Amino acid sequence: MTPPPTTILTSTSRLTLTSTSTSISTTPGRGWAIGGRVGPRDSDLSVPGSARFVRSAAAAPPVRSPRLFSAAALGVAAVAGRRQRRQQRRRRTAARAGWHFGSEDADEPELQQQGEYQEEDFEDGEEDGFSQLSTHREMIEDEVRTEAFRKAIFQHCRGKVVLEIGCGTGILSLFAAQAGASRVVAVEANEEVAEFAREVVSSNGFSDVVTVISGRIEDVWEEVDRQLEDENRGEIQADILISEWMGFMLVCDGMFRSVVFARDRWLKEDGLMLPSKCDLWVAPFSNPALIEEQTGYWCSTPYGLNLSALAPRALEQHLSQPVIKILPESGVLATPVSVLHLDCNSAEDWEVDGGRAKFDFTMNRDAPFHGLAAWFSCELGPQVSFSTSPDSRPTHWEQTLLFVGPESPAHELALRAGERVTGDLQWLVSGRSTGVVMVGEVACSAEVVRFTRRLELHLV
Amino acid sequence: MTPPPTTILTSTSRLTLTSTSTSISTTPGRGWAIGGRVGPRDSDLSVPGSARFVRSAAAAPPVRSPRLFSAAALGVAAVAGRRQRRQQRRRRTAARAGWHFGSEDADEPELQQQGEYQEEDFEDGEEDGFSQLSTHREMIEDEVRTEAFRKAIFQHCRGKVVLEIGCGTGILSLFAAQAGASRVVAVEANEEVAEFAREVVSSNGFSDVVTVISGRIEDVWEEVDRQLEDENRGEIQADILISEWMGFMLVCDGMFRSVVFARDRWLKEDGLMLPSKCDLWVAPFSNPALIEEQTGYWCSTPYGLNLSALAPRALEQHLSQPVIKILPESGVLATPVSVLHLDCNSAEDWEVDGGRAKFDFTMNRDAPFHGLAAWFSCELGPQVSFSTSPDSRPTHWEQTLLFVGPESPAHELALRAGERVTGDLQWLVSGRSTGVVMVGEVACSAEVVRFTRRLELHLV
Repeated sequence: MTPPPTTILTSTSRLTLTSTSTSISTTPGRGWAIGGRVGPRDSDLSVPGSARFVRSAAAAPPVRSPRLFSAAALGVAAVAGRRQRRQQRRRRTAARAGWHFGSEDADEPELQQQGEYQEEDFEDGEEDGFSQLSTHREMIEDEVRTEAFRKAIFQHCRGKVVLEIGCGTGILSLFAAQAGASRVVAVEANEEVAEFAREVVSSNGFSDVVTVISGRIEDVWEEVDRQLEDENRGEIQADILISEWMGFMLVCDGMFRSVVFARDRWLKEDGLMLPSKCDLWVAPFSNPALIEEQTGYWCSTPYGLNLSALAPRALEQHLSQPVIKILPESGVLATPVSVLHLDCNSAEDWEVDGGRAKFDFTMNRDAPFHGLAAWFSCELGPQVSFSTSPDSRPTHWEQTLLFVGPESPAHELALRAGERVTGDLQWLVSGRSTGVVMVGEVACSAEVVRFTRRLELHLV
Repeated sequence: MTPPPTTILTSTSRLTLTSTSTSISTTPGRGWAIGGRVGPRDSDLSVPGSARFVRSAAAAPPVRSPRLFSAAALGVAAVAGRRQRRQQRRRRTAARAGWHFGSEDADEPELQQQGEYQEEDFEDGEEDGFSQLSTHREMIEDEVRTEAFRKAIFQHCRGKVVLEIGCGTGILSLFAAQAGASRVVAVEANEEVAEFAREVVSSNGFSDVVTVISGRIEDVWEEVDRQLEDENRGEIQADILISEWMGFMLVCDGMFRSVVFARDRWLKEDGLMLPSKCDLWVAPFSNPALIEEQTGYWCSTPYGLNLSALAPRALEQHLSQPVIKILPESGVLATPVSVLHLDCNSAEDWEVDGGRAKFDFTMNRDAPFHGLAAWFSCELGPQVSFSTSPDSRPTHWEQTLLFVGPESPAHELALRAGERVTGDLQWLVSGRSTGVVMVGEVACSAEVVRFTRRLELHLV
């Protein structure tokens, strides 16, 4: 299965919201809200199409900045049980911190965050998984990811001034130096990790080319100014901006806001973004093996005991959050569509922070319906790309599976080729928490079965 | 390798502290402290031997009760990197909550907790991994553990009144019912899990024998009284007390305090405890494969880059906490000794909460020294036992590896058969956090190399 051409189901070619009554707002210190209930705002932006977008006048630096690292590596190789437990705890923490979903009965549930999300466990850049080298190793070892960046960097960076946001241990900046960049400025929020990057730059003999700056880009911009000015070309700017900011489902826990901050400040007019374009893809899926994996043991009469009553409970617990897992290619039930297309040279941070898209899928095979699977693809300049789709080589991002859940009447509905799944998908990112709402219906035989599902993904 | 007879390196046969100046104290709301600096106390208990034990007069229920579930299942099958990251975060949380170690220079560092440990993430019984059925499945699927309990229960429970503390999904109580117990009262702190247990009891047709009570034993003792009284034998007591309370390294995050509470209140004079006896074993170990696993990638020149500077950093990060991992049998370098022996019929809760023991090992093979490995064994009545030792069938507890760490001069010291490792091991459990201090010396060739290591294990 090859990904089809990008299909943007939106009212404009650039913005991804489709509802005629939808608005996105941000208020200082309160994060984002999607829906009719819009908080105080500073300005309105009119855009083509029927959607209305409301955005506060952004002062730089932004009020609430994502971290300067990607959540990407956090999903690799752990057993689902442990991951689910960990996420479970975060979900509860978040529940206390003010996430609220609308009524289950609402036809059009809204995602709103009431009060600022409490990032209680991450009071400074030190306090998350990205201080752990094992996390960085998982990302570096992902050859699909790292080789794509390496190839693009070697194609474009010779003789260029390069800025990297969220450099981690400095690998991508070292590629740029190896490729012949005249100057590389690498920014890393985590001080300990920045020191690791300096050591690696030094032991590879590139200390004269690569400068590692420790701190959040919004805090250390003056130092970046100085470093870029040192180039003495009379302009404080970069030719190429590199950042591996992509999280699960592209948007989760990304640091795209910091990338936009850096792009708007330093990237020259015709500068290159790496990645340059990104798409978030969605398709209906079926994954009976995962259902069996979660329920089979409970139904196996261990020690002669009937534990089958626990099978649906265990399943609901496991599926109560987005599941990060490799989906067999045969589990994709219809042609995927892109619900978010980002041109990284022009996209705004709020395009990643929240969005909404209608979907309309026609099944291309018979299978029990389980929900929507999400993944992303990236272009790195005109000639390099990679995808985290089920028909591509697996990456540490795997796929993100949004199950309608065993309590939904649509769960395991036997769909046949030609039948349709239609509806509406919303997401809202706040700090390290992402809320997702799926509302839709499955047209199956003579029956129409509706589903509504709210899920939250939390990262530690 | 068969475990040797129990060797208690203590000044009395029952209590495990060896230092002539050691005291253990507890003050209401402040947890335990080991060392010379003893806080306010209510009473002193004189015991045989040279150690002095200070204990507050315990009012029932205890001031700070451990949870009614074991930490046991939390270590299974996740990759080390994720586990380490998770523990890392907890370590930092704990650091804020008031753990303090003595000076690195001290010959005899002391473990003290200043202020009450903040169990911020677990404000009620719902908020930890034990609400997740995947955690319970890991424990039930551990056949070494579950079959040992099953065998002992079938040997002893016919016609008996049985009380289980921390019943989880109710499996052990169901074994008791299958074995012919006249009455089983099962207590589970987590309300959701208690409901699961009720369903399982019902679907196995034992609702008339097994009663599941939801709540912490210290809170629901009146209900337990009523249930035991219903037996109409004129006495509110149980013949057998079952509890699978054992955590990593036996003591970590256990709920032995609740077991003691129940035993002292309800177990009849000659009643049976399951488990009946437990030992915590320690031996020096060597595990070059784990060192290679943590450092090999960084030294492999990935993508042509020299990342070897990160190898020692990654290793120190990984070893900065106790490592839960299967140790090859060949990695045990000397005859193990028991540093804690519990007779569950008479042991007090503070014997698990904190302890200190001297060790004196003579190497029985040549190997690079890495630290002390810990595991435990249990007797379940006179005829059944199991061990979590490196030479036994692996369990979900694996072994607990306390590395001296790459920054210690003793790390990787090439020891030869006949050379000695001597010193002192302390531990202190507070809520879901356990602090460990190893102080010792390695007599190696003509040299004596000292080591001091402080480690903390945190469970979520």
